[in-house]
Amino acid sequence: MRLSDLPTPCLVLDRRILARNLANMAYATGRHGVRLRPHMKTAKSIDVARMALSLNGPEGAADSGGITVSTLAEAEYFAGHGLVDMIYAVGITPQKLDQVAKLNASGAGLSIITDDLDVAAAIATHPAPARTLIEIDTGEHRGGLSPEDDALLAIAGQLGGHLAGVITHAGHSYGARSMQDLARIAEDERRGAVRAAQRLREAGFAAPIVSVGSSPTALAGSNFDGVTEIRAGVYMFGDLFQAEIGTHGIADIAVSVLTSVIGHRPAQRRLLVDAGAIALSKDRSTQATGNDQGFGLLADMAGRAAFGRTVVVTAYQEHGVVELDPKMPLFMPPIGTRFRILPNHTCLTAAAHDRYFVIDDDSETVTAIWPRTGGW
Amino acid sequence: MRLSDLPTPCLVLDRRILARNLANMAYATGRHGVRLRPHMKTAKSIDVARMALSLNGPEGAADSGGITVSTLAEAEYFAGHGLVDMIYAVGITPQKLDQVAKLNASGAGLSIITDDLDVAAAIATHPAPARTLIEIDTGEHRGGLSPEDDALLAIAGQLGGHLAGVITHAGHSYGARSMQDLARIAEDERRGAVRAAQRLREAGFAAPIVSVGSSPTALAGSNFDGVTEIRAGVYMFGDLFQAEIGTHGIADIAVSVLTSVIGHRPAQRRLLVDAGAIALSKDRSTQATGNDQGFGLLADMAGRAAFGRTVVVTAYQEHGVVELDPKMPLFMPPIGTRFRILPNHTCLTAAAHDRYFVIDDDSETVTAIWPRTGGW
Repeated sequence: MRLSDLPTPCLVLDRRILARNLANMAYATGRHGVRLRPHMKTAKSIDVARMALSLNGPEGAADSGGITVSTLAEAEYFAGHGLVDMIYAVGITPQKLDQVAKLNASGAGLSIITDDLDVAAAIATHPAPARTLIEIDTGEHRGGLSPEDDALLAIAGQLGGHLAGVITHAGHSYGARSMQDLARIAEDERRGAVRAAQRLREAGFAAPIVSVGSSPTALAGSNFDGVTEIRAGVYMFGDLFQAEIGTHGIADIAVSVLTSVIGHRPAQRRLLVDAGAIALSKDRSTQATGNDQGFGLLADMAGRAAFGRTVVVTAYQEHGVVELDPKMPLFMPPIGTRFRILPNHTCLTAAAHDRYFVIDDDSETVTAIWPRTGGW
Repeated sequence: MRLSDLPTPCLVLDRRILARNLANMAYATGRHGVRLRPHMKTAKSIDVARMALSLNGPEGAADSGGITVSTLAEAEYFAGHGLVDMIYAVGITPQKLDQVAKLNASGAGLSIITDDLDVAAAIATHPAPARTLIEIDTGEHRGGLSPEDDALLAIAGQLGGHLAGVITHAGHSYGARSMQDLARIAEDERRGAVRAAQRLREAGFAAPIVSVGSSPTALAGSNFDGVTEIRAGVYMFGDLFQAEIGTHGIADIAVSVLTSVIGHRPAQRRLLVDAGAIALSKDRSTQATGNDQGFGLLADMAGRAAFGRTVVVTAYQEHGVVELDPKMPLFMPPIGTRFRILPNHTCLTAAAHDRYFVIDDDSETVTAIWPRTGGW
C-alpha cells in the first residue's frame, strides 16, 4: 500500500522522524541522568509508546513502563496493552476515584494528581486510595499550588501514606520565543517543584517523586538537580508551533495530514483540499508567533515544505482553502493531486484520526497501520 | 442513569430542543412546498436522522430517506442503517469514484458533486458512473462555477445521462448579521441555482434537481421558486454562533458538553474544568460576531446559560479555563461540580465525541445513548 492508495484525509506518521525525535529527547534527558516519563496524550498509540519506552531505560536499555496520560480512557487503553506505572496528569475529581480504583485493581499502577484539600480527603477516605502527587504551579497559573502555599502541607497531611510526591508543568514555556527564555522557564519549573518537595520532606513527608516537564523545558533545561522524572509528549511528533518556538525544525515534524485537491480558484490563487476543520483541527497556535501558518502548511508527498508560505487559510468542516505563497508561480494541480499538510498543533490534529499510516525510509510505501485511542 | 453519573467530559443532547428545532425547520421549508434534505454532517447519528426524516414528508408523513453527507464514511454508515438517496456534498475526486460505486452497488443511492471538466470525464468513463450534480457558486466563493460560466455546459456535456442537476451552498450566510442580510443571501442562492439549471435545460439537459441550502438561508428565505430541495444541518442542534446571527435563540441549543470542575483560581475569578480543546474544539466562530463567547458559554445542569458571560477563555488539550462574568459574585463551586458548556460551533464540538447522552423533559435523567459516526 502506498500513500497514493489511501483514502483522504488521513494521518501519516514518518517513523524515521519519530525515531530521531525520540532519540533526541532520550539524549537530552539522559545526559542529566533523569528518567523520562513520556506523555502519551499526543500519540495515544501503544506502538509509539513502545518505541518511546525502548529508548528510555539507563543507557538505552529497555524500560517496561512509566508513562503519562491525559484521560482515564488513555489509562485504560495503555493498561489493556500491558503498560503499568502511569500518572493521570489532569486534576482528579472525587467522582473519578472509583474508575481509578478499578484501573488500579486491574494492575494499571495509576497515580493521580490534586491541588485541593477536599479532594485529598476524598482520596484518603476512598476504599482503594490511589498514589497521589500534589500539583505545583511554577508559573503557568493553570492548576497547582504555589510551592510556598500553606495548603501544601495540609493536603500532604490529608493524603498521608498515599502521597507520592509533587508534579508541575511549565506550560507557559509555550509562550517563550527563544531558547534563553525556555532555559529560564525550565529552571523556574525545576526550582519550584524541588522547593515544594523540600518543604514536604522538612515536614516529615516522603515525597519521593519530583516530576516536571513540558517538551520545550525538557529540551532546554540545563539543570535538573532534585528532579526525579521529566514528562514530555509533543516532542515525539513536533508541529509548526514547536518549530516556531525553536524546539525543533520544520523537517522534524513526524505527523502530517494527507489530503487531495478537490477544487481550483486560480483567480484567488487558491486550491480547495479535502482536509478541513475536523481533519486539521481549528488550532491557530502559530497565529501568536509572528509567523502565522493558518491551519497548516502545505508539503509535498515526501513531507517537504516545498511551497514557501502556502498555507490553509480557511478551514470549513471538510474543506480546506489553501492559498499559494504570493512569491510562487501560479499552479493548479489536477483534482485528486495529493499533498501533505503539516499541523499547527499535533495533539489536536491527531485527535480527529483513529489510526496512523506509517511510512519509512523516505518512501511513500505504507509499512504499518497503527491504531490510536481517543475519547474519555 | 443521570447526568451526575456520567463520565466527564461527554456530549449531552436534549431531545425536546432537537424535536422543536426539527419541527421549526420542517415548517420553514414545508410552507414553501420544498423538500428538506437534512445534512447529517452535524449529527452523524442514525437516531437523529430518523427523527429528522420522520417530519420531512408531505404534511408530516414519514419519508424514508433523502439526506446529505459530508464524508464517504457517513455515507457508508447511513447506508448500513438502511438509508438511501444521499448527496455527498463535497467535491469528488477521481480516486474516490470506486468507493462511491461500491456504496451504490450496495444500494446507497449516492449522488456526487463536481465543478471540474476532467472530473466529469472521469465520472462518465467510470465503469459505474454515479448520478452527479454540478456545483454552483452563488456567492460563497468556496467551490462551484458561476451560473454563467461556459464550463457549466461543457461539464454537463461530459456527464451526459449522469447529470442529476445543480447544487449550491450559500455558506457566506454565516457572515450575515441580520435576518435582512440572510434573506438577501437566500435569494441570491436561489436565483443562482435556478439560473444554472435554466441554462442547462435550455441547452437540452434534464437537470431535475435544484438543491440549495444552509441553515440560515433555509430559515430566512421567503422565495424558493424553482428549487426542488433545501439542505441544512446545524439547525438540528444550533450553537452560539447560530444564535449570534439570529437563526435561533440560546435556549434552542440542543447539544452541550457536560464537564466537571477540576480546579480553582479565585484570585483570577477562574475555574478549571475537564472540557478542553478536544472536548469543545478550538472553534472561535463567535469571535467575529462582536459577542465573543470564547470556547463556549457556561450553563447549569438544566442547560440554562445562567451565569452571564461566563465563558471558557482558554482551552488546553484536556483543561478548560472558565472565567466568571465580572458582574457575577465570586463563586468557587467544589471540585467535581458539574456544568454544561454550550458550543460555539456544534459540528466541530460534536466531532470529538462518539455518542450522545440523551435527556428529555427538563430532567437530568439519561433516557438514551445514541452512537455517532466519524472519521473518513
